[in-house]
Amino acid sequence: MKNTFGNNLTVTVFGESHGPYIGFVMDGVTPGIKIDDEFIKHQLTLRRPSGAISTKRVEPDEYVVISGAFNGFTTGTPLTIIIPNTNTKSKDYDKTEFLARPGHADFTAECKYHGFQDYHGGGHFSGRITAAIVAAGAILIPALKEKGIIIGTHIKSLGGIKDISFSAYEKELAFLNDAEFPVLNEAAKFEMIEKIKDAASKGDSVGGVLETVVLNMPAGVGEPMFDSVESLLSHALFSIPAVKGVEFGAGFDMADAYGSEFNDAFYMDGDKVRTKTNNNGGINGGITNGMPIIFKTAVKPTPSIYKKQDTIDYKALVDKEILIEGRHDPAIIHRARVVVDSITAITVADLLVGRFGTDYLK
Amino acid sequence: MKNTFGNNLTVTVFGESHGPYIGFVMDGVTPGIKIDDEFIKHQLTLRRPSGAISTKRVEPDEYVVISGAFNGFTTGTPLTIIIPNTNTKSKDYDKTEFLARPGHADFTAECKYHGFQDYHGGGHFSGRITAAIVAAGAILIPALKEKGIIIGTHIKSLGGIKDISFSAYEKELAFLNDAEFPVLNEAAKFEMIEKIKDAASKGDSVGGVLETVVLNMPAGVGEPMFDSVESLLSHALFSIPAVKGVEFGAGFDMADAYGSEFNDAFYMDGDKVRTKTNNNGGINGGITNGMPIIFKTAVKPTPSIYKKQDTIDYKALVDKEILIEGRHDPAIIHRARVVVDSITAITVADLLVGRFGTDYLK
Amino acid sequence: MKNTFGNNLTVTVFGESHGPYIGFVMDGVTPGIKIDDEFIKHQLTLRRPSGAISTKRVEPDEYVVISGAFNGFTTGTPLTIIIPNTNTKSKDYDKTEFLARPGHADFTAECKYHGFQDYHGGGHFSGRITAAIVAAGAILIPALKEKGIIIGTHIKSLGGIKDISFSAYEKELAFLNDAEFPVLNEAAKFEMIEKIKDAASKGDSVGGVLETVVLNMPAGVGEPMFDSVESLLSHALFSIPAVKGVEFGAGFDMADAYGSEFNDAFYMDGDKVRTKTNNNGGINGGITNGMPIIFKTAVKPTPSIYKKQDTIDYKALVDKEILIEGRHDPAIIHRARVVVDSITAITVADLLVGRFGTDYLK
Amino acid sequence: MKNTFGNNLTVTVFGESHGPYIGFVMDGVTPGIKIDDEFIKHQLTLRRPSGAISTKRVEPDEYVVISGAFNGFTTGTPLTIIIPNTNTKSKDYDKTEFLARPGHADFTAECKYHGFQDYHGGGHFSGRITAAIVAAGAILIPALKEKGIIIGTHIKSLGGIKDISFSAYEKELAFLNDAEFPVLNEAAKFEMIEKIKDAASKGDSVGGVLETVVLNMPAGVGEPMFDSVESLLSHALFSIPAVKGVEFGAGFDMADAYGSEFNDAFYMDGDKVRTKTNNNGGINGGITNGMPIIFKTAVKPTPSIYKKQDTIDYKALVDKEILIEGRHDPAIIHRARVVVDSITAITVADLLVGRFGTDYLK
Repeated sequence: MKNTFGNNLTVTVFGESHGPYIGFVMDGVTPGIKIDDEFIKHQLTLRRPSGAISTKRVEPDEYVVISGAFNGFTTGTPLTIIIPNTNTKSKDYDKTEFLARPGHADFTAECKYHGFQDYHGGGHFSGRITAAIVAAGAILIPALKEKGIIIGTHIKSLGGIKDISFSAYEKELAFLNDAEFPVLNEAAKFEMIEKIKDAASKGDSVGGVLETVVLNMPAGVGEPMFDSVESLLSHALFSIPAVKGVEFGAGFDMADAYGSEFNDAFYMDGDKVRTKTNNNGGINGGITNGMPIIFKTAVKPTPSIYKKQDTIDYKALVDKEILIEGRHDPAIIHRARVVVDSITAITVADLLVGRFGTDYLK
Repeated sequence: MKNTFGNNLTVTVFGESHGPYIGFVMDGVTPGIKIDDEFIKHQLTLRRPSGAISTKRVEPDEYVVISGAFNGFTTGTPLTIIIPNTNTKSKDYDKTEFLARPGHADFTAECKYHGFQDYHGGGHFSGRITAAIVAAGAILIPALKEKGIIIGTHIKSLGGIKDISFSAYEKELAFLNDAEFPVLNEAAKFEMIEKIKDAASKGDSVGGVLETVVLNMPAGVGEPMFDSVESLLSHALFSIPAVKGVEFGAGFDMADAYGSEFNDAFYMDGDKVRTKTNNNGGINGGITNGMPIIFKTAVKPTPSIYKKQDTIDYKALVDKEILIEGRHDPAIIHRARVVVDSITAITVADLLVGRFGTDYLK
Repeated sequence: MKNTFGNNLTVTVFGESHGPYIGFVMDGVTPGIKIDDEFIKHQLTLRRPSGAISTKRVEPDEYVVISGAFNGFTTGTPLTIIIPNTNTKSKDYDKTEFLARPGHADFTAECKYHGFQDYHGGGHFSGRITAAIVAAGAILIPALKEKGIIIGTHIKSLGGIKDISFSAYEKELAFLNDAEFPVLNEAAKFEMIEKIKDAASKGDSVGGVLETVVLNMPAGVGEPMFDSVESLLSHALFSIPAVKGVEFGAGFDMADAYGSEFNDAFYMDGDKVRTKTNNNGGINGGITNGMPIIFKTAVKPTPSIYKKQDTIDYKALVDKEILIEGRHDPAIIHRARVVVDSITAITVADLLVGRFGTDYLK
Repeated sequence: MKNTFGNNLTVTVFGESHGPYIGFVMDGVTPGIKIDDEFIKHQLTLRRPSGAISTKRVEPDEYVVISGAFNGFTTGTPLTIIIPNTNTKSKDYDKTEFLARPGHADFTAECKYHGFQDYHGGGHFSGRITAAIVAAGAILIPALKEKGIIIGTHIKSLGGIKDISFSAYEKELAFLNDAEFPVLNEAAKFEMIEKIKDAASKGDSVGGVLETVVLNMPAGVGEPMFDSVESLLSHALFSIPAVKGVEFGAGFDMADAYGSEFNDAFYMDGDKVRTKTNNNGGINGGITNGMPIIFKTAVKPTPSIYKKQDTIDYKALVDKEILIEGRHDPAIIHRARVVVDSITAITVADLLVGRFGTDYLK
C-alpha cells in the first residue's frame, strides 16, 4: 500500500522535505483516545535535531490537527495532522540538482519518477517525513500505555561502543523515554557522543543499532504466516529511511548456536506463563507469547557527508564528483529511536485492534 | 492479510502438517507462463529432507495443479496447487499433546486458537507449509529468468563456519541452484555438514545465515515508504518459520561504520549506471538501483531437539518436562534456502507486475 | 484483491468449470465454529440445478475439507474446501471454441488472458465457481445464526410476476431458507415457474430480482466512506456472475420521491431504538442502525440460450453466427438466491470480525 | 480500507463538515500528470451549492496542494490537497445536539463512536467530504482524457421526470461536463428545476437517478470475481452519501426480460469489435469489452427537510420531535453528478494503473 501502513488501524504519510507541509492520516483509530499535546511535542522534540551532535537546521514542528479530533479526543474518523516545513534552504540543492548523492535516493527517484520528483532535500525520501510517523505514534503511545503496553529503545551500539543490557525493563524504559540520547550506561553514552563529534569533525557520519522492547503485549496476537509479528514489525521498520537490518530476540546470534542453547523453556510464574530466557523475542510461530517483544534495528550512517565523493549526473549520464553542502547530521541514531518507537506503536496498535476489535484502545 | 501475501500478484497458503493436503492459490499471475513440472519437482526435492543430515521422514510431494493452468500454461486466473501429506505419524504428537514444545508455537497457538488448533506436527505452523511456498515460487522463478532476473542463495555461515563471498554471480548462482547443500567453498561445506552431524549425534540442532542475491532487477522498482523493497522482502522472509533476522547489503555491519566507508559511489559503466560497492544491497530509498539485491536471513536452530527440556502443560498450567520424539532435522538451513529463494521470487514478481502491469512476466 | 474478498475474514475462490476442482480458502475465521456437514450439503443442493426448470447437468458437489478443520471445528487457520467437477462435457465447447458467446465473458477473457484462458464452460467465469461461495457461506451462516443473525432471500420478481412483501421476517426467512424455489406467495411461485418453462420451451431464458434480509445485525457496524455496508455488500454481490443491479432499502424508488416520504423516523420500542419505516434498508451513513438490512439484487437472464445469435470469431476477427449447445438453465434466479445469501454471510461476518475482533463468531 | 479506496492508485479522504479542513491523499498516481487548476476549480464549482435550487451556504473551496506536486505536475509521491471549511455555523447544530436526524447518520455515528464523533453538520458523514473526492477526481479526469477516456453524467430522472437517452456520446458528454444542471433535454431540465423549487417551497426535498458513461475504456480490464468492474465501481459509488442503488447497462430492467432480448450480439466494425446493443453496460464477466461503460446511480432525497419529524434523543433514549434548521439543499442530484464522475475517474484510473503499470497515465 505504498504510503499507507496497517490492516485495521492504518497510517498514511505524505509530504516532501521542502514542500509546505508533511503529515499523516490515521484511520481506524479507536474513538475516545485523549490527544496529549504535551506528549506529541515531547516526541517531536526528541526527533528534532538539536545541540552539537545534530544538524543546525531548526524545525519547530508546529503541528496542526485538521481532522478526526473533537473536544480533545479522537473521533474514530480519519485523524489528520499536518506539520509545516519551515527554514528550508532549497538553494543548497540547486547546485547539485542532477548529481546523485551516494547512499541517497536521488538516482532511484529519477528511475521511478522520470524527472518529476521534488529533488530538494530528498523530497518525499527525506528523513523529514518521519516527523509525521512520530506524531502518529504520539497519538497511540499513551493509549497503549493505558492498556499497560510500554515501548522503549536504547542505542545498543554505535561505532563499536556497546551499551549494557536491560536489567529492569519498566524503570529503564521510563528513563530512556525521557532521555535525549537514550543509552543505559552513562560512560557508553559519553563515548558514543564523542564518537559522533569526532566523525563530525572529519566531515563524516556514523550509524548504530537500536534495541527496542515492547512490554506487556497480550499473548496470542499475530498470525502464523505472512502476518507474523516479525513480518509486520520488520515491514514497518524497514520503511524508516536508513534502516538496513532487523532482528528479533537473539536474531543473527541464534544462527551460529545450538538449539539447546536458544530454545526458551516455559515455566509457570504463579498463574502466568513465562519463558526462562527470551531468545525468541517474545514471539513463537509469529504470535506473541506474553514475554517482552525485543528486536534490534540497524541504522546506517547518514549518507550525507562533507567529503568529496564520486558519482554521476543522472540526466547527462556522465561521471562527476559531488561535495554535499547544506546542514546534515553526523548521526541520526538517537533521533531514529523515537521513529522506531512510533512505528512500533502503530504496528502494535494495529495488531491489537485487528485482534480484539476497533474499540480496544479506549 | 494473514495467509495471503502480495499486492498485485498474491499467494495464499493453507494446510496443516498432518492434514490431507497443503497448498497455495496464486492470483494475479501473468497468463501464459509455462508450468515447468521438472523444475517444480527439482525445487520441491531441494526442500525435502534427505540424507544423513535431515529427518528420515519421507515426503514425496506429489503435487497436483487443480486450477489456473490450461495446456501447460498459467491462465491468469487463480492457480492452485495441492500437495498431499503422507507418512505422517500423528501418534508421535499425542504423547505430548498439551506440552508446549520450547521454541515452537504450541503455546501461542493455544492462546490464539483456544484449543481448536490442530496440534499434530505443529499444524499450520509446521515448516511443512513451506512446500507450498516452494511450489509457488517454482511457477515464477522460470518466468523471472526469462526476463533475465536470477535468484540464488548460499549458506553464509553455520555454527561459526563461514562460506566465502560471491565473486562471479551468474556462474555461482547457477552452481548453487543445483546444489543440495549450497555452499561456495567446498571445505566450508564439508565442515558445516560435520557440524550438523555432530549436533545430531548430541540430539541437538544448529541454525545458520543465508545470503541471497537477485540479479538484474530493473532500477526504479519499489516505494519510498511502507512498500520499500526492504519492507516487502523482510515481510515475506519473516513469514518463514525459524527466520529471526534479515539485513540488506552490509546490514548490521554498517551500524558500526562511517558513512564514508559505506556510501556506494555511482559511476558509468558504458551506458549503465553502477555503484562501485554495494553496501546498500541494490536498494536506495526503498527502490531498486539496478545493482544486485543482496540480503541475509538468519535462521534459528530447529527447536525440536532430543534433549529433555523444561516446559508447561498449557491446559493444566503446571510445570512439566518434555522429551520430544518423532523425526526432526538437526538443521534446516540448507532446506530453508529454497524457501527463501521462492518467497523472494514471489515478492519480486509482485513488485514487477505492480510496476509494469499484469502482463509483465509473459 | 481479484479473487479474494474481505478485510479480516477473507475468502479466496479458485477453479474452472471443467477443471478438476473448484474451491475456496477462508482465512481469519474465528476458531471453534462447528462445521455442519448437513447444512453445507443442504446449501449446495439449493444451488445445484435440479428438476424441470434447471439444466440436466448433474453436479454431485462432493466437497472435501482439506485444511483448517480439526475434530469438526474450524481451527482459525485457513479453511480450504475443494469440490470436484464431474460430468463435464468439454466437447460441447470445442465446436464453438473461438466464437464469443453473447452476454458471456469469452471475448473479454480473450482480451485479458490473450488466449491462455480455459474456455471450456466459461472456465473461471462459470457460475460453477459460485458453488465455492456457497460452501464458504455454509460455514458462516450457522455461526451467524448462533449470534442471532439470520439471512434470507426471496424472488421478488421474475418476468413481470411479483412476489408479496415480507410481513413476518423470522418465520418467512425460515420458510424461504428451506424452499427450493423461494417465493412467499404460492400463486406467484407457480406463475414464475410457468414463465421459466415457457422460456425454456422457446430456447430462451429469464432473469429476476432477489430481495434479501439480514436480521439482528448489531447497530454501529460499517464505515462512513469507502467501507460503507452498502459498498461492501454491493462489491460482493456484483462479483456474482449475472448480477447487474443492487439497491438498498427503497433504492431506485427513493430517487423519484420526497424526503418527507422516505426519511425513516426513529422511535423507542421499549429500550430499543427502531425506525417506523425502513426505506434506508437498515443503514444510515454506511453504518448499520439495528433495523433489518434489506437489499435487492438484479439477476440478468442466463446468457446461454438455444437460439441462433450473431457474434464474432475472436481469433479470426470475423462475423459469425453461433448456436449454443450443451446443457444450460432457462433461469438461475432460484439458484442465485443461495449464492446471494452466502456472499452476504461472508460480508457480514467480515464486518463483525473487523468490528468486534477475531473471536466474535465463537 | 475504511477511508481509503483503490488497489494501486488509492485515495484517502479525511475531514469533518465543521472542522478546519477536509482533504485527500492520492497515492500511486503516475508521475508527470499536469495539475490543471482551472479544471479543479471548475469541478469544485459544479459541486458547490449555488443559486435558487441549492443551499445558501457559501463554500469558496480554496484548495491548497500541500504535497506530491512539483512545478505543476504530480511527482508520483502522495498528492495531498486540503480545502478549508469556512462559513460553518456550528450553532445551528447545538440546538439539536442529541436528536437523531431521520435519514442521517447521527444515531449510527453514536453507536459506532460512542459520543466522541463531531456531530456538527454531520461531521465526517457530511456531503461536504465529497469536495475532496471531486478535487481528487479533477487530478485524474484530464489525464484520462489524454488517453481518450471520457466520463460524463446526466440526470436520468427526478421526481418522475425523465431525460432523453444519449444519442451522440462525445458531443453530449462535452455538453454535460460544462452544464451546471446536467440534463440533455432542455424541457425536462426546466421541469426538474420546477420540481425542486416546488419541493423547496414545501420544506421538502427530492432525489433522482444519474446515468454515467465512460467512453473508450480499453477492453480486457477488470477481474472475473471480486474485482469485477461492477464490484469496484459500485463499491466506490455506494461510498457517496445518499446513494442507494447502482445498476449497470439495462440493470434491473434485465431482470424482467428474456435473454434473447438483452444479450449483446458482437460484430466487427472494421477491425474493431463492438456489440449491437449495450445492455451489459460495456462489461462481460466483470471485464470491460471496449464498449462504453454505462451505469445508473440512485440518489435519495436530501434527508434534511424543514418539516417536523419524529425521532429520539440518542443519549436520553426517549422519543422527541425535531425541526431541522440551518441551510440545506432541496436537491443534491445535480451536485452529486460531479462526485459520481470523480469517483468513477478514481476507480477507472486505479483499474488502468493496476492493469498496465504505474506509468500508464503519463
